[in-house]
Parts: sequence; structure tokens; C-alpha cells
Amino acid sequence: MAYFQSKPIAGRHFLQIPGPSNVPDRVLRAMDNPTMDHRGPDFGLFGKQLLEKVKPVFGTKGPVIIYPASGTGAWEAALVNTLSPGDTVLMCETGQFASLWQEMAQRLGLKPVFIETDWRRGADVESIGERLRADKGHSIKAVAVVHNETSTGATSRIDEVRAAMDAASHPALLLVDTISSLGSVEYKHDEWRVDVTVSGSQKGLMLPPGLSFNAVSDKALKASETAKLPRSFWDWKPMLASNATGYFPYTPATNMLYALDTALDMLHEEGLENVFARHERHGEATRRAVRAWGLEIQCEDPRHYSPVLTAVRLPEGHSANALRAAILERFNMSLGNGLGRLNDRVFRIGHLGDIGDLQVLGTLTGVEMGLRVAGVPHKSGGVQAAMDYLAGNA
Amino acid sequence: MAYFQSKPIAGRHFLQIPGPSNVPDRVLRAMDNPTMDHRGPDFGLFGKQLLEKVKPVFGTKGPVIIYPASGTGAWEAALVNTLSPGDTVLMCETGQFASLWQEMAQRLGLKPVFIETDWRRGADVESIGERLRADKGHSIKAVAVVHNETSTGATSRIDEVRAAMDAASHPALLLVDTISSLGSVEYKHDEWRVDVTVSGSQKGLMLPPGLSFNAVSDKALKASETAKLPRSFWDWKPMLASNATGYFPYTPATNMLYALDTALDMLHEEGLENVFARHERHGEATRRAVRAWGLEIQCEDPRHYSPVLTAVRLPEGHSANALRAAILERFNMSLGNGLGRLNDRVFRIGHLGDIGDLQVLGTLTGVEMGLRVAGVPHKSGGVQAAMDYLAGNA
Amino acid sequence: MAYFQSKPIAGRHFLQIPGPSNVPDRVLRAMDNPTMDHRGPDFGLFGKQLLEKVKPVFGTKGPVIIYPASGTGAWEAALVNTLSPGDTVLMCETGQFASLWQEMAQRLGLKPVFIETDWRRGADVESIGERLRADKGHSIKAVAVVHNETSTGATSRIDEVRAAMDAASHPALLLVDTISSLGSVEYKHDEWRVDVTVSGSQKGLMLPPGLSFNAVSDKALKASETAKLPRSFWDWKPMLASNATGYFPYTPATNMLYALDTALDMLHEEGLENVFARHERHGEATRRAVRAWGLEIQCEDPRHYSPVLTAVRLPEGHSANALRAAILERFNMSLGNGLGRLNDRVFRIGHLGDIGDLQVLGTLTGVEMGLRVAGVPHKSGGVQAAMDYLAGNA
Amino acid sequence: MAYFQSKPIAGRHFLQIPGPSNVPDRVLRAMDNPTMDHRGPDFGLFGKQLLEKVKPVFGTKGPVIIYPASGTGAWEAALVNTLSPGDTVLMCETGQFASLWQEMAQRLGLKPVFIETDWRRGADVESIGERLRADKGHSIKAVAVVHNETSTGATSRIDEVRAAMDAASHPALLLVDTISSLGSVEYKHDEWRVDVTVSGSQKGLMLPPGLSFNAVSDKALKASETAKLPRSFWDWKPMLASNATGYFPYTPATNMLYALDTALDMLHEEGLENVFARHERHGEATRRAVRAWGLEIQCEDPRHYSPVLTAVRLPEGHSANALRAAILERFNMSLGNGLGRLNDRVFRIGHLGDIGDLQVLGTLTGVEMGLRVAGVPHKSGGVQAAMDYLAGNA
Repeated sequence: MAYFQSKPIAGRHFLQIPGPSNVPDRVLRAMDNPTMDHRGPDFGLFGKQLLEKVKPVFGTKGPVIIYPASGTGAWEAALVNTLSPGDTVLMCETGQFASLWQEMAQRLGLKPVFIETDWRRGADVESIGERLRADKGHSIKAVAVVHNETSTGATSRIDEVRAAMDAASHPALLLVDTISSLGSVEYKHDEWRVDVTVSGSQKGLMLPPGLSFNAVSDKALKASETAKLPRSFWDWKPMLASNATGYFPYTPATNMLYALDTALDMLHEEGLENVFARHERHGEATRRAVRAWGLEIQCEDPRHYSPVLTAVRLPEGHSANALRAAILERFNMSLGNGLGRLNDRVFRIGHLGDIGDLQVLGTLTGVEMGLRVAGVPHKSGGVQAAMDYLAGNA
Repeated sequence: MAYFQSKPIAGRHFLQIPGPSNVPDRVLRAMDNPTMDHRGPDFGLFGKQLLEKVKPVFGTKGPVIIYPASGTGAWEAALVNTLSPGDTVLMCETGQFASLWQEMAQRLGLKPVFIETDWRRGADVESIGERLRADKGHSIKAVAVVHNETSTGATSRIDEVRAAMDAASHPALLLVDTISSLGSVEYKHDEWRVDVTVSGSQKGLMLPPGLSFNAVSDKALKASETAKLPRSFWDWKPMLASNATGYFPYTPATNMLYALDTALDMLHEEGLENVFARHERHGEATRRAVRAWGLEIQCEDPRHYSPVLTAVRLPEGHSANALRAAILERFNMSLGNGLGRLNDRVFRIGHLGDIGDLQVLGTLTGVEMGLRVAGVPHKSGGVQAAMDYLAGNA
Repeated sequence: MAYFQSKPIAGRHFLQIPGPSNVPDRVLRAMDNPTMDHRGPDFGLFGKQLLEKVKPVFGTKGPVIIYPASGTGAWEAALVNTLSPGDTVLMCETGQFASLWQEMAQRLGLKPVFIETDWRRGADVESIGERLRADKGHSIKAVAVVHNETSTGATSRIDEVRAAMDAASHPALLLVDTISSLGSVEYKHDEWRVDVTVSGSQKGLMLPPGLSFNAVSDKALKASETAKLPRSFWDWKPMLASNATGYFPYTPATNMLYALDTALDMLHEEGLENVFARHERHGEATRRAVRAWGLEIQCEDPRHYSPVLTAVRLPEGHSANALRAAILERFNMSLGNGLGRLNDRVFRIGHLGDIGDLQVLGTLTGVEMGLRVAGVPHKSGGVQAAMDYLAGNA
Repeated sequence: MAYFQSKPIAGRHFLQIPGPSNVPDRVLRAMDNPTMDHRGPDFGLFGKQLLEKVKPVFGTKGPVIIYPASGTGAWEAALVNTLSPGDTVLMCETGQFASLWQEMAQRLGLKPVFIETDWRRGADVESIGERLRADKGHSIKAVAVVHNETSTGATSRIDEVRAAMDAASHPALLLVDTISSLGSVEYKHDEWRVDVTVSGSQKGLMLPPGLSFNAVSDKALKASETAKLPRSFWDWKPMLASNATGYFPYTPATNMLYALDTALDMLHEEGLENVFARHERHGEATRRAVRAWGLEIQCEDPRHYSPVLTAVRLPEGHSANALRAAILERFNMSLGNGLGRLNDRVFRIGHLGDIGDLQVLGTLTGVEMGLRVAGVPHKSGGVQAAMDYLAGNA
């Protein structure tokens, strides 16, 4: 029974929202070790190895800053460390989270230029290229893209964004939000020359929420020297200074760092390539189920299908929220709601983090039975289609 | 990842053997509290309420003895407290566990009379009645029956055994093994006038193995006064004396008692009637899947179908062990093996303890995919049949 | 053995730094429950009751904002929600943490006026009064005081600060840092008309680091409507809007909220008055030990003695860091180091959070033996003095 | 707060009874991992390495049998596997536990010959030798000795018992109870040619109660072939057969085996020699405190002083139970009560298992303050004496 579950329900809750993902027992057990002295000699040893161990997940050899704060904070950190009041930021409206990041930029006194989309695909690389080419004076200081848009299930092609920036010979910084992709989808901070990679703990990293990250390029570091937005808590400089010896400038979230340490061990033991392939496979299985049900996948572009979650559109006149409520009530499973303009129009199936074939299929049985119970028109056979795929592709 | 898992596998292991069942997080969290002084004042308060709280699960108002030992020990306790060397015990060969109990009786110097069966049904009530009626001299001192035979998935009708004993006006004691049924299947120690109910922690009680139980009638207590089998560790007398104030005559398994306390809370919160109905429902769903696959259920008598597990026969020439190995390897699920004469002939699906619809269905997807992967002839549609049932009967 | 302990040491580590304090097992067990859906119906119920339950610890009936971030962040939140670039803030240099808060104010573009002290007492109420009376034009927008200065062990009298502000009839906001006092020292947000109370999780609240707080007065809320410092993550407005139904505007640190919920239960079960008295008692016991050793307490004013920690000065020519290293190495205890200008001059004994008499005395035995082992001139008898006090005052 | 603590008390409970000892967090965390399939392939690997890893603690290269039962059961196992009804066993009344073992032998139909003592020293080696020499007909089948008598704090010299048996050229088996010494006191099953070493989990092995052990010599195995006491649960034969491949003949206490695995890692990491030296040191520190208080140590022979616990006699007319109750009430510490004839006459201080200097000293402060609070005549200075010793001997 989950903490504060309002009624007794037998069996493990299926937490199939697209994050927080299910935290493995091994990670929970690490997290609940006694808190240690964050200024003692053992902490320095611990911190140093941890700050190294986290790098490969970002695909970087450069510094990764760890904040004792949730992912939204790392968005703010990326902006305030690199930009100055009034700076223009080119952003791409891939969905709700891109919109929220854009609103944050506005609230912080930046000038976001927002490339609108229909919320059914990843970032519009062509438009980004156009805008950059048109910006002869280089007034655009940064391009900010959400790698995996959690509200729609679309994964943007960061390699292509990079290529478009290169093609335009534009010097803007590249800021990428990988909160819901890191540790689930292949990502290459260094190779794609990303300047700030923003991430969080509660998705592919398999931790509870409460840690967030900035992976930082040399170019971003240089930009931070002249960036004028006021900053203190988020400031990279004292972080990097303390991190050099494995410490933090203010009290870190020690127990979450234990959890991170163990989660990274698990990712490295499985092998990042295997982790990514597993997510791809579960994404494909889920989409086959959705198609068999005769329902529509929110993401229309197969090149942007997310390995992390699948957002499913309901037929006109049917309520996604009513469906989710029925599934929660009858089958003890939480699915993601539709966010922003997609509220009540889609539901989202998370298939990320510490998950195996039988959890994915158990999830799909809950959806298929839920569609029936809630009276949503569909064909049966979704679970069968997913089984056919997974049994042939284990 | 499970403790000592030999290779890294993502996702939660599906432990679908017919016990140990999956221990709920809440129970694990209770168990890992610091060990307390088993002779201190708080322990007495704890012990007294616990010894009361456990009674309703047995359907008794009489004493329930808790051993810091696994279930096999409680078998021994039932015998050595009530019988004397050379005593005749009427037992019924419902399967492997009944056979093991019978072997134990022999090793302890008793004379078991063993009613043979084909391992495809519960206890043979008619034969029991016959033997008792034939035993004019009342040389049979006890009738010992396994309530839920874990090796075959057959649940004996204890009410009918009682009726047969009454009809024969036979004074033998009635000893019942409920190791794999208690907390999952309706059970009435007092109403059925059972004399010793034997049970264990790791099935319907949702604990790890390590505790076992004897619920004891007045008649059994009286028998213990003259029973001559040597006994010390298992002796009821010092247990009952200490239990009167909430204590134990030797060090109890304190942390397992914490776990028991919490598991009982969970059972009572859900309501025993609801718990039993849930198990019935999951048994039916599983059997529908098995039939849809075109496979045979080991238990042939529908009145004896077990709500706890389903043993499934493989077609001639196919290996149940190879199937289980493939499912473990490919889908990270443990199923029960065939025991004794059923080795390699059946596999057993546990659907007991802390389990919900989606775990049951996830389990069945693993079996259905496993049948395909292992090349066992079958029809698809088993999961679908189970979903059809569960979606209509939530 | 603690997580990442570099060598095997038997026995529980004594974490006697002035925070993070020792997290009770019960809190760790709550924290390691499975993460729940932060947008599901149960979360709303959980959130609402939790947001109420936290208020009495602050002595407020008004809103308390909970950040998924460590305490330093809550400092920033207090400033950016209430002030505008260039605003003057009157601060009082009670020690290292007051200094850091002042530096933060500078970095955020505020104009702190810093009342210097000798780091051996609480806030200089007289000077505060003077400055306010002199500020006829009310250019001072806020008075910011650290309630319990963790670097020196001095607790400022917030009631007197309030009185001084009233006496000066000055409209400045009153911002108070209670990071290391809340839940250990009596505190009255409403009665003392504090406008923003800043706090953190890892001291008197007995949690790991990773949560922080702003208790907010109506006057502060009103100020936030016109405050011009850029803010997004820390912004109270969306927080309060979501909190109204028990939710948060972005992913909260769910598992830390479980821990908070349980820690608050523990505080309320013990009774806040009892908690405060216990801390007073342990502070007095510790100071008696220090005096018996013939060492000097860093805080010179008995009215400002901290119930949370005691900073102890070393005789000239002796190194506090060498002492702490010897104690860690030989006796497996972490003590607080001297911060800023007190580096190597003092060590700090934490006696806060979930602690009883025997932990306090075990701590003092470690200090007394450490003084001997490290060759620091002292008299023995400190532990004896503390025992004499505690045995007479239990 | 401990499980089922009847009133809220801040700070960690001091569980200073002579077992169960304080279970380290790392062991509790291992124990609360999900239960695994005890018949699956990973279990075999786990079991095999565990059955090897446990041997060095016993000082044996031979088999160690692990029962899913508490220590009293392992006493019974040692007797029923090696002896026949009516067999004579020479036992030595070192205290309450030796008396209980002797009573068990009687109840099982053996003929114990009991060498009486004054409960103030270890086994009377001289008398043992005498009796054996007098037993020309070798009617004595076994000599059974308690290594560390937990009721009195006396450790018998097993090497000398062995020598006495050799000197008498007597073929009796040597059975030794190490329940409260194993993992705390040097022990050499093979070198001392012990035939059955009995042990339990909850003392030096740092686990909760619930596992017990028989280390078995070849001679004991041979004896088991002809031993006639009825046995089934405790029977070595099926155990050894299953153990050969890492499995158990009936369901083992899986989660306790996880705990054992981790506890053994901890012992081996610290080094058994270091573990034993640590216990010696803490015994000496405690005895110095007792002497400084002017109280009498129950064990009169320094060669038999226990490194595990110290039993302390109260002055005539004073109640040890009243003292313990006061200490529990006022200082949240559990001490051992006087057992059997020592009830109310002694209290027992446990200094075993996962314990460091500061826990030992914290314990002694609780005793010293308790003596004062309860009005027991004593001199102060006990804690000081212990500190003087430990600071000079770290």
C-alpha cells in the first residue's frame, strides 16, 4: 500500500505516469541510509566519485552540477547562469513543458521567441534554422529545446537542432531539457555540443524527485562570466569550486545522492546501450497496442516517437480524465493526465525507468480493461499485439 | 534488483510461485525496525495485542501459538503435542505436501495410514469416512489433512471432512495444514471444530518465511496432557504460559512479529471477506486463461479449485522446467516447479497474497509469451480471456 | 556502517554536527515508501493535511510554503519574493550564516546594511533599533535576522527584535532564518509578527536535507505583489494557488514529504513544549561539561545560549580541526568544524533533533576522550558534570 | 522510536541487553529486500556461497547447518541428531541457560548429569574431568557446555574442557552452546574438536532472532547415523543433502539469510581478530566502571570474564528490577534482567555486536545516572574509569 493511500487496495500500485517513475527497491534502500556529515572526509571521497560517475549518462566529460532541488529549478539555473535581462531566447513549443519553460524565461526578464507547433511532434528544426539564419545580428543568445516533451510523447532530434545551428553559423548557446529523457534515451552532450543540459532525478534516473542537474560546456561557462541575471542559489561558480574536492557550497541533499549513486550503478551494470534499447522496445510495444485498439497516438511523426511515454488521444466526446479515474479506481494504476490544451483529450502511458516486459504488459492490460469499463470505443487486441511483439523481440 | 540476482535485469521481479508470496513494502518496512527487548514492558503490550489480532484469520477465539520457525516446524509441533509413539494417524495423499507430512509422521514414530489419490483433487472425504467407520476400536488418533495442497492446486473441503468425522462419531483429532491457504481462503477453525490448525507466514499472510502457527482447540490441549512424543522447543505448555502476559518462553523472532502485526492490519483493513473474494476471482481468471490456451488444469474437481495457485499440465513430450527456465530468463518471472511425481510435468502459477488484477495479468502475459518462446503447443487468447473476466467482474 | 564509509568501523556513527541531525528510523522508513502520483487524488488529500500539520511548528496559522530544495534556497525565496533590486536590507552579522545570507543579498542586487558583531552573541537588538530610528525615510525595506546562528551557537531574541522595530515604528519587513532552530527552539511566527520565516528540513525537523520552507505573513504577501526581483522557481504565487487543493505547481520532493509528515507526527506526539524543554536541557548539560573542562563557550551571552549546538573555543595554539580529526578517527564521531573566521578555532557540538540523554552523554565522552587523545589542555570531569545535571533533571 | 513503543521518547533506544544486540542498519536494509524464489537458480548460487561464508566464524571447514528457527531450536537439534532415549549427558550448571538446556535434555528423554556451580564462573573443568575419568564404561555419551553463559557473564574455557576430555581418554561427544558468544569471542570448532556447535543469530552475528546453527564434526555425523531420538524438522541428513547444491529441504527464512550474508560481510570486513579484540576491550572498560562504582561483578573468576556482557550484583536490599525500570523510564535504555535465581539480584549490561566506544560509554552513563536516581549506594567515577581506559587503549 502506498503512503497515504486513502483506501486499502491489495497489490502493488502501478505508477505508470511518465515520471516520477517507479523507484527500484535498491535505490530506496540506499536512500534510507543514515545521513552523513557533508563536510567530513568520507563525503569528499563519495562526492568526487559520484560527480564522475554521473557524467557518462549525459555523454559528457565536462562538469555536471547537481542541485538539491527539483527539475524546474535546473531550468532556472540554465537560464540565470548564461543570460542577461532582455536577452532573446529562441524556444520551440513542443508542448506543455516547453511552454512552461518559455513562461519561466519571460518571468525572469528574458525575451523568448516561441516557435509554435501543433503539439504533435518534436522541435521544428527547419524553423529554428530559419530564425537563426534571419538573425544576422545574433541577437538570439540561446536556443532552448525540450529533448523529450513529456506532455505529448515526442522526442526532439537534438543532433538535427545542432546541425541547423551549425548550418546557420549562429553563435547562440544550445540549452536542452532532458528531464524526462536522461537515462532512458540516447543523449550526447559533448558530441552534440550542447551548452547546458538540464535534467532531473525522477524519470530515467529512477530516483524520487528532489535532485536536478546542469551539464555545462566550456562555452556556457564562459557565458556565465558575463551573464547578468541575478543568481545565488543556482550559481555555478561556487558549485564548481566546491565540487573540485567532492563537496558542495551549501548542504546537499545527501540521501538523494546515495540514491543517485546506486541508480547510476544500476544503469552502468545494465549498460546504457541496453537501457536505451529496452526503452525503444517498450515504446514500440505500447504503440502497437494503441494502434490495435484503434486509437490515435498524439505524436504524429514516427521519427519523434518517445521511448519514454506514449500519449494517446481519445475519440471525440470521450473524457480521458474519466478513463484515468476509472482505471485508478478499478485497477490501481496511475496514468498521466493531459496537460494544458490536451487536458481531458489524451492520457499518457509511462514506460520508463526500472521497468520490464511484464510491467509494461500489466500496464497495457489495465488500459485495455479500462477502455472497456469506461465505455471508450476501441477494438480489443492491444495487449495481444504488444505480446506478439515482445515475445518475438525479447 | 533482487538480492543476489546473478545478472542485472530491469524491472521488478515477478515472484509468482505459490509462496513465498510478494511481501508488501509496508510489511518489509515494519520488519526492518530495530529489534526490541523481548522481555521489556512494551513487548508484553505488543505481544498481547498481536496474539489477539491473529485469531480472526484462523477463525478462532482460542489460542494461536506462534513459533519462531518455518512452517514445516509447525507440522511437527501439531504431531508431537498431541500424539504418542505408535499412534495411528489417518492422512490423505492430496499431493507432495501431504506426502511430506506423512513422511514426517513416520520419522517421528507415528503410524500414518495414507489414503492414496491421483494428486488431481482435494482430500477424499468418502474414504476418510469409510476408514473412520471401520475403525471401531478408535485406534486412529488423528485425521490430518492439507487444506490447500500447494503441489497440485487443490483445496480440500475441511467442512466435509468434519462432517464425515461427525457422521462416523469418531473421536479422532482433526489436524489441518493451512500453510498455503490461511489469509487467502475462508477458514473456520472453531466452526469446523479443527483441533490443530498448522500455518506459516510466507503465503497469504504476506510475510517472509520464518514464522509458523498452531491454532489449538480445547480438545487438542487436553490431548497434549497425555501425549508422549518427546518435545521441548515445540511444547505448547510453556508457550501458552508465557503468552498469557504477551511474552514467549524463549527469544521470539521479534522483527517477524513486527511484520506479522502490520500484515494483519492490512488484512483487517481490506476485510477478510474481500481478501477471500479477491483470491477466488484471480483463481477463476487464471483458470480461464489456462483453458483458453488449451492446457489442462492439474486439479480436476471444480469444487476443489484453489484460489491460491493453479497447477498447469504440459502436453506430453514438453518440459515444464524448460518452460519455467525460459520464462525466468526472458521475462524475469519465477513460477512454481512441479514437485515429486509432477516434476517437469506441471508448472504452478501463484496468485496469492498481496496481489492485484494487473499483477495477475502481467503474470499471465509472461506465461503466454513463455509458451510461445518455449515452443509449447497452445492457442493464444489466454490473457484476453482473463481480461474479459476481470473487466466484467472488478 | 554509514553509506560510503571508507573503512569498516563497528557501531553506529555519532553524527553530532549541528545538522543534518540524526534522522530517526521511523522517518527514514517513511521516506523510502514508493513515490506516488503527485497529480493523483490521494496526493491532494495528503498535501492538504500536511500543509496544515506543518503550521504549528512555525507558530503560525498562515501559509507555509514547502520547496523541493535545500535551506539556502529558502533564503533566496524570502528575498526575491519581497524585495526589489537596490532595496536596503538591515542584517546583523551574528556569524557565518548571517554573513552568507548577506552575501546572497548582495549577489541578488540588494543593498544589505550589515551590523557587525564579534560572533559571540545573538543579533544586536540595540543597534537594529538605532538604525531603524535613524532611517526616517524608511529606505530599509527589511530586517533580516538569523534566529539560531549555527556557526557560533547563539540564539537571537526575535521577540526583542520585533519590539525594537515596533519601538521605532518602522514598517520594514521582518525576515527570520530558523533553519537550525525550527522544531528545536520555541518559535512564534504569528505572535512575533515575523513576515517571512525561512527554514530547512535537516535540523530540528529531523529529515535529511532537501526540503525548505517559507512561512509568510499577509504583509509579506502584499509586498510580493510589488516586489521586482525576477523569480520563477521560488515564486510564492503559483505555490499558494496549487497548495489550496493540496498540490504543487511543479513536481514536489514526494518522498521527503512522506518524511516530513512522519517527523511532524513525532514532534506532535512528543509535544512541542517537551521538545523545546529537552533541547534546553541538553544545551545546559553540554555547557556544564565545557565549563568543567575549563574550555570557553563561543557564545558569551547566557541569554543567547543555543539549545541546538554549543561551539567550544580551543586554547590558543591548539587546532580544533586536529581535535575533530582525532575524534572521528578514534571514536567514530563527527563534530562541526569552525566556519569562516572561526575555522580551526572552535569545534561545534550538535545536540539537536532526535536525541536523548544517553546520546548527548555518549557525545560528551567522545569529546572528553578526544581532548585527551589530541593533547588539548583541559580538566577531566565534563561528562561527570553533565551526568550530575541530567540525573537531577530528567 | 521503536516499533510499538508505548510512549513517545526522543532519541535512539539503547538496547543494551545481552542479545538481541543492536542490528546494524546495513543488515536491516539487506533483510528488507524482496523475498526470492528459494528453488530458483539464483538461490542456489546465493546459498552455496553463504554456507561457505559462515564457516570461518565457527572456526570450521566442516558443514554448518542453518535452521529457520531461533537458538533454542538449535539446542534441540544438537541433542536429537546425536543421542538416543536414555543417553547420559554430562552438563555443567554455569547458570540459567545451562539449566534450561539441561531441562530440555530431560524433557527429550535423556539423562543429564548436572555438575552444580555457584553461577559465578564458567564450566568446572576439573569436575568434568573427574566425572569422565570415573565413567569407565563410557555411559556418558556427550558433554554439553555453554560457552558464554548469558545469565552470569561467564565464558567457559572450551579448550580446557577439550583437554580434560582428552586427558580422560573419553569418547563422549562435545556439544557447545555459542549462542551468545559466536562472532564476539574467539571460537575454534575444528581446533578444539567440538562435535556440535550450537548458535543463534541475534547476538554477535548482529541479526534479529530467527536463525540458528549447528556446526557439525565428522564424529557427530557418524553418531547421527545411529542416534534414536525421533527427529524430522531438525534432522541434519536432508539438510546436508540439499545444502550440497545451495538449497534447503524446506522453505528457509530467506530474508534472514540476506541479513546473515550482510552481517558476515561486515564481520569479515572488520576482521574477526579485530572484532574479538573490540569485545575484550569493551568488557574491560565496563568492568572498570563497575569496580569504580563499588559494585560486584557476578563472575568471580577473571579467566572467565565475558567480553559479551557484564552481570552486576546489587547491594543487599536493593532491587535490580527497580533499577532497570528506572533506567528504562528515565534514560530509554534496556538492560538485561537477572534470570532464574538471580532475578532482581543482578542486572546485565550487554556490550556485544555492532557497538563502538561511544555506545558503550553512553550505556555506562545511563547505568551510573540510574544508580543515583534509583538510590542504589555507589561511588561515582565509573564512567570516568571507563573513559580513562578507552582513551588510553583505542
